[in-house]
Amino acid sequence: MHILVLGAAGMIGRKLVGRLLADGQVGGRPISRLTLFDMVEPTAPGGSVPADTVAGDLAAAGQAAKLVADRPDLIFHLAAIVSGEAEADFEKGYRVNLDGTRELFEAIRLVGDGYRPRLVFTSSIAVFGAPFPPDGIHDEFHTTPLTSYGTQKAIGELLLADYSRRLFFDGIGIRLPTICVRPGKPNKAASGFFSGIIREPLNGQEAVLPVPETVRHWHASPRAAIGFLMHAASMDTARLGARRNLTMPGLCATVGEQIAALRRVAGDRVANLIRREPDETIIRIVQGWPETFSARRAEALGFRAERSFDEIIRVYVEDELGGRLPA
Amino acid sequence: MHILVLGAAGMIGRKLVGRLLADGQVGGRPISRLTLFDMVEPTAPGGSVPADTVAGDLAAAGQAAKLVADRPDLIFHLAAIVSGEAEADFEKGYRVNLDGTRELFEAIRLVGDGYRPRLVFTSSIAVFGAPFPPDGIHDEFHTTPLTSYGTQKAIGELLLADYSRRLFFDGIGIRLPTICVRPGKPNKAASGFFSGIIREPLNGQEAVLPVPETVRHWHASPRAAIGFLMHAASMDTARLGARRNLTMPGLCATVGEQIAALRRVAGDRVANLIRREPDETIIRIVQGWPETFSARRAEALGFRAERSFDEIIRVYVEDELGGRLPA
Repeated sequence: MHILVLGAAGMIGRKLVGRLLADGQVGGRPISRLTLFDMVEPTAPGGSVPADTVAGDLAAAGQAAKLVADRPDLIFHLAAIVSGEAEADFEKGYRVNLDGTRELFEAIRLVGDGYRPRLVFTSSIAVFGAPFPPDGIHDEFHTTPLTSYGTQKAIGELLLADYSRRLFFDGIGIRLPTICVRPGKPNKAASGFFSGIIREPLNGQEAVLPVPETVRHWHASPRAAIGFLMHAASMDTARLGARRNLTMPGLCATVGEQIAALRRVAGDRVANLIRREPDETIIRIVQGWPETFSARRAEALGFRAERSFDEIIRVYVEDELGGRLPA
Repeated sequence: MHILVLGAAGMIGRKLVGRLLADGQVGGRPISRLTLFDMVEPTAPGGSVPADTVAGDLAAAGQAAKLVADRPDLIFHLAAIVSGEAEADFEKGYRVNLDGTRELFEAIRLVGDGYRPRLVFTSSIAVFGAPFPPDGIHDEFHTTPLTSYGTQKAIGELLLADYSRRLFFDGIGIRLPTICVRPGKPNKAASGFFSGIIREPLNGQEAVLPVPETVRHWHASPRAAIGFLMHAASMDTARLGARRNLTMPGLCATVGEQIAALRRVAGDRVANLIRREPDETIIRIVQGWPETFSARRAEALGFRAERSFDEIIRVYVEDELGGRLPA
């Protein structure tokens, strides 16, 4: 099968391509070709599967049509301007996250002639906005985003469901939890500390915690996220009915529970590298974020996340540190 | 104040313009000018308020910018391709209902310079799709439309909330119940019988009932709908917070209750003009429609609908038949 990955140069995109090459197949069908697309040209993967890499602007006229002209059997649409940038640059966010998505969906529709690929779209828990139900966000809670990014993702979900209903493609939208532990350098995202307080100490560096330990949030590892994508690519979508967008399972943990897990996995010396430095701006932003979910539908459909924060930390140590804890 | 009405030639649009001229003011501010827009040129209203009538395509380049160039203080956006047509003509539905709405919102944003009109958008209960909660659709139920029309309205709601949050305009979206009793000729809409079984007998004609009397639905009169629009135009939107889209109150009635009300208001001879002729296609379509709602938020914010189907029938007799029942 021919697989198209949009957003292939991002953290999730690169890990997904690695998994596709390692598996060599999706749902029992061998992978014969990859097309990897992003705003910056993705790195060509090694291995025996032919892979084209393409840099471009998905919202530009004709770009999406070119990408689907060879009728890829499976499309992963991960491409997006992130939350902070979509909020800072209104026009760019709508152009990439809404127009880009719509151009892709339209290009697929206009191929016609029975073409109906599986399309996996990464949405986000940012489609939800406070106030939330006290017992967590259930599968029938309304989407009232409080950011332009969340709005664009919620619109993408609606389009995906309608295009799927009209049989233009076989779509599934997956709302990712906050991905933790994100590998790489610290970034300026307000949510950065959730990963930073684990990642920096495990790399022997101090981390700043800007919020109280009572803050609760919804996490899944990068490895779990790739698992969601692979399951969405191969599952029987007839089981979704008309409701094609799913909140993914995750792990609800307080910052205090994150730190206790780090202490259990890596010891006091590592955990003591976290410095408390409350930041009122971040505290206020985080108050509007979802704390916990009841993702029953996705669980019943076979999606699986970690069951403890210790496990999330061990995934990071295995996948990013070659299994080695700091001495 | 200068008021722009988009969709001014439709049934609701014409009644709204009549009410605006009769009132002469909105929320205590005198109306100084009207601009009436539709795909076909709206009829120029009589009266002392200057009114421009414009025919055009809201999605066409530059049309929306022209309409908002004079900075109307209040905009009613009622323009839409109806459900059946949006389903039959996919491209036309998205062009008018999504692109047209987005062009309007963008045109307002691009005026800039502190321009921030009140914008009232008519959405629909078609944003909801079965299966529904057994106790009715509450204010936090998710929007999973089962038509392209419902999808386009749900996207309009999301855009309205985001543009309002960004302070580009002061928006409010109102989800109208099925409007009953619609005046005029019978139409081919699957929902047509809800009005037809009341309207035709009151005009001395036979009506066909294609569904069982147990079918429940959610109704409001045209007069109530105009009341919703006027309240949305003048209310304090600070009370909405970030959640700018509201399910309007209505009356839940079975077809049997509709007929019993007709019998009470107009007598046996009129009610006996309803002929039962089950239509399996319509029965199946209607099964996917909402039956009842709990519209607590809108009620708490002062929106009011009829409290009995007898009242809905009396509104029709007063507003369309000059108060005269058939002899």
